[in-house]
Amino acid sequence: MATKNFYAVIAGVGAGTGRSVALKFAKAYPVVLLARQPESYRDIVKEIVDAGGKALGITTDVTKQESVESAFAEIQKAEGFAGAGLAAAIYNVSAGFGGRKPFLETSINDLDAALAANPRGLYLFAKSALPLLLESVPTSPHPPTLIVTGATASVRGSAYFSGFAVGKFAKRGLAQSLAREFHPQGVHVAHAIIDAVIDIPRTRGYTVNNGAPDGKLSPDAIADEYWHLHTQHRSGFTQEIDLRPYIEKF
Amino acid sequence: MATKNFYAVIAGVGAGTGRSVALKFAKAYPVVLLARQPESYRDIVKEIVDAGGKALGITTDVTKQESVESAFAEIQKAEGFAGAGLAAAIYNVSAGFGGRKPFLETSINDLDAALAANPRGLYLFAKSALPLLLESVPTSPHPPTLIVTGATASVRGSAYFSGFAVGKFAKRGLAQSLAREFHPQGVHVAHAIIDAVIDIPRTRGYTVNNGAPDGKLSPDAIADEYWHLHTQHRSGFTQEIDLRPYIEKF
Amino acid sequence: MATKNFYAVIAGVGAGTGRSVALKFAKAYPVVLLARQPESYRDIVKEIVDAGGKALGITTDVTKQESVESAFAEIQKAEGFAGAGLAAAIYNVSAGFGGRKPFLETSINDLDAALAANPRGLYLFAKSALPLLLESVPTSPHPPTLIVTGATASVRGSAYFSGFAVGKFAKRGLAQSLAREFHPQGVHVAHAIIDAVIDIPRTRGYTVNNGAPDGKLSPDAIADEYWHLHTQHRSGFTQEIDLRPYIEKF
Amino acid sequence: MATKNFYAVIAGVGAGTGRSVALKFAKAYPVVLLARQPESYRDIVKEIVDAGGKALGITTDVTKQESVESAFAEIQKAEGFAGAGLAAAIYNVSAGFGGRKPFLETSINDLDAALAANPRGLYLFAKSALPLLLESVPTSPHPPTLIVTGATASVRGSAYFSGFAVGKFAKRGLAQSLAREFHPQGVHVAHAIIDAVIDIPRTRGYTVNNGAPDGKLSPDAIADEYWHLHTQHRSGFTQEIDLRPYIEKF
Repeated sequence: MATKNFYAVIAGVGAGTGRSVALKFAKAYPVVLLARQPESYRDIVKEIVDAGGKALGITTDVTKQESVESAFAEIQKAEGFAGAGLAAAIYNVSAGFGGRKPFLETSINDLDAALAANPRGLYLFAKSALPLLLESVPTSPHPPTLIVTGATASVRGSAYFSGFAVGKFAKRGLAQSLAREFHPQGVHVAHAIIDAVIDIPRTRGYTVNNGAPDGKLSPDAIADEYWHLHTQHRSGFTQEIDLRPYIEKF
Repeated sequence: MATKNFYAVIAGVGAGTGRSVALKFAKAYPVVLLARQPESYRDIVKEIVDAGGKALGITTDVTKQESVESAFAEIQKAEGFAGAGLAAAIYNVSAGFGGRKPFLETSINDLDAALAANPRGLYLFAKSALPLLLESVPTSPHPPTLIVTGATASVRGSAYFSGFAVGKFAKRGLAQSLAREFHPQGVHVAHAIIDAVIDIPRTRGYTVNNGAPDGKLSPDAIADEYWHLHTQHRSGFTQEIDLRPYIEKF
Repeated sequence: MATKNFYAVIAGVGAGTGRSVALKFAKAYPVVLLARQPESYRDIVKEIVDAGGKALGITTDVTKQESVESAFAEIQKAEGFAGAGLAAAIYNVSAGFGGRKPFLETSINDLDAALAANPRGLYLFAKSALPLLLESVPTSPHPPTLIVTGATASVRGSAYFSGFAVGKFAKRGLAQSLAREFHPQGVHVAHAIIDAVIDIPRTRGYTVNNGAPDGKLSPDAIADEYWHLHTQHRSGFTQEIDLRPYIEKF
Repeated sequence: MATKNFYAVIAGVGAGTGRSVALKFAKAYPVVLLARQPESYRDIVKEIVDAGGKALGITTDVTKQESVESAFAEIQKAEGFAGAGLAAAIYNVSAGFGGRKPFLETSINDLDAALAANPRGLYLFAKSALPLLLESVPTSPHPPTLIVTGATASVRGSAYFSGFAVGKFAKRGLAQSLAREFHPQGVHVAHAIIDAVIDIPRTRGYTVNNGAPDGKLSPDAIADEYWHLHTQHRSGFTQEIDLRPYIEKF
């Protein structure tokens, strides 16, 4: 598999899913890590480089057009990325959710944050990534891929989580529209419904599914799934998957 | 049916659905009409008053918090509305959609407009309406009701209409969350998937469904449906309906 | 509303929804009640006739082709029905579900019963009713209507209720296919997701939703809803509704 | 990966998906091929054996309880299978669909055939396979898996294809119920929505998607997908995927 001339970009990299996805795709491609704070990507970049891979971290606010455009401009000038094609773009940003709160206690700022991080960020990211993914169609080892991380709330509004559903529904609507527009052009757009608590440092203390073993979703399992989606042949694209631990009620 | 102490408010009133809904609810309640331009509600207010009803038009930008809050403050001071309870609130705003356009030719402004008019406007409207609807629960003739107008794009993203799906999916996610939170408190929240071209002045020239009679959706049929939703007994709330002409492909 | 030349037929009549639907439609039309046992329809026929309406009960096994065909033949010869048009056909059969049971403890007989009463019965009923409904299109006061009663299990398979979901999913698939085929011909086909325990004699002792008032779905509310669906103008057909008490979790 | 003590069974093997799935799983496990006619599996068994694998064909009518039970009894006595554990069971039967036909021209036999081959066959197959899959939970290399092949008609009823939707909806309802019941016990149950014309000998002459390259779904792509589902870690099970060519409208 020719990998040296293609790279992947992951928006929303921290200690959880983003890190696992970056490590997974780094086995095949140089990777770019976008996060709002350098602390979020610094160690992962080092981890990849130490393992012999290639990684570039760029401090980016995906909710701001200039920030996203400047990140993509920087990639295309960076050593080892200039001249390379974009093989995969993963939108994994999940900020902007204020937690469980009665609707009447939320504020318009909560809503705006949810809209900014979810549909607006995805819009800006897709706007920069899709022209590059389209360019890669004729030559990339796998169909160029845009993957969007969703959640239970992407398909189900819940009491006391109204801001959460708003952002996730919107992101799903955008991903589905993009799939219908870009699949025929050869770019694979997939949406993943992550219906679980993910097993990351922040959730280490949570008791989920009565503490059953593997009762939280491993971020490495998500990364494996994203890689699998990326490698699907164009005769069979999956547009949407759900993913949850065996023990999870649904 | 005691109606004199309750009123209805309709956001997004123009020549089409909003007008029909206002006329329908005006048979039972004084109605408030919110629109961005006085031209949008002026004739309808006159039509209702001439028919012996009561109507109040308020120039409102539902995408702005101050504007929505000031509209609701004005209602509660207006003659004939002060002291009355809110029986029904209908969110029928559909601005903010730039039409068929390849994704890469849209701009962040298109997206922002779609988000402002759809989830953001609904959020602000619901934030002001729900406390009043809750107050009406013990005394209103029918369960107080919040109805949200959706579209085909509420459940289906389409190529070249990405901005449309983003806003409509988000609005549906919010409506569903609100239903799950406020149904148990006695407020009915319903979402209507309008899967049709509506038969309004603006669409008069469109040939739809090969020009079949009744091939467009009558706005009066939508109004009848909304009234029906409002009058459902609390032992049987409908959260979501679809509505389309008999001849419409789906 | 001209009613004397049209009638309605309800399959699956007992002490609950079927009775309420029959009483409701009997206000506008002579009604035919189909049930497997005369005990299921006898009192309802009397109740309708005593109230000045017209009703005919026919002992029918909807899972048997000959039985269904013979019921429809009998209707067309019966005094007061001969020569009349079919305005509405309601399929409300819900037999064939063996209750909560681990899958491995169910038998093929449970499955066969679920399939017989749900898709097979609906198929046979629709096969006899649709030609009559089509004939009524040009003259009936409302668009001729076929309504199918579904359940939560129509859209959601559940652990320990596998037989239930099988039958309900199948019935929904058939109703949706029929809608897509017969709507353009003027016959309205609607499916109702009854997401509740219905308040009927059999469930009187159940504590539902912590015993909240109106915590069970009133069968009269279902009947109102079915009548409403029947009276929708052809410019706006609803194909599917959900219906549940305000207090029901969903 | 220890494979010698586990086997896979595929119901519905012919020239298309079943063959590809059998060949794929045969790389890891001895496989059993069930088909109504020996002609359907004979060449595939030979192909697998010639390639150094192990395969057993059993003539089985999945719509008959005795036939399915006798097939599973035979497996457990067969050389190379006796004493082994069941790792994966794939239900790929798609018979029983009479093609495009107006509903009123179908017969109850068409419906019965659709019900027999889809929910009834899956029921019988699952009834025999699940106890064996449960036994394999503690020791199998991957979570034991039941995979069900669905179609566009699993989630969408279409005009003139009513029998098709009935069977596919039912099968999906059963698969979803089984997932909710058996996932917590460690058995993975997945349903695949195959939204495409599959590229098999029978469809070779069809022009699909304007003859675009890879415009039909490769059966090998389906097989890869099923294998991937089988290998998912229990911390992240996918219950449902869609699969369609990049160029397919949806």
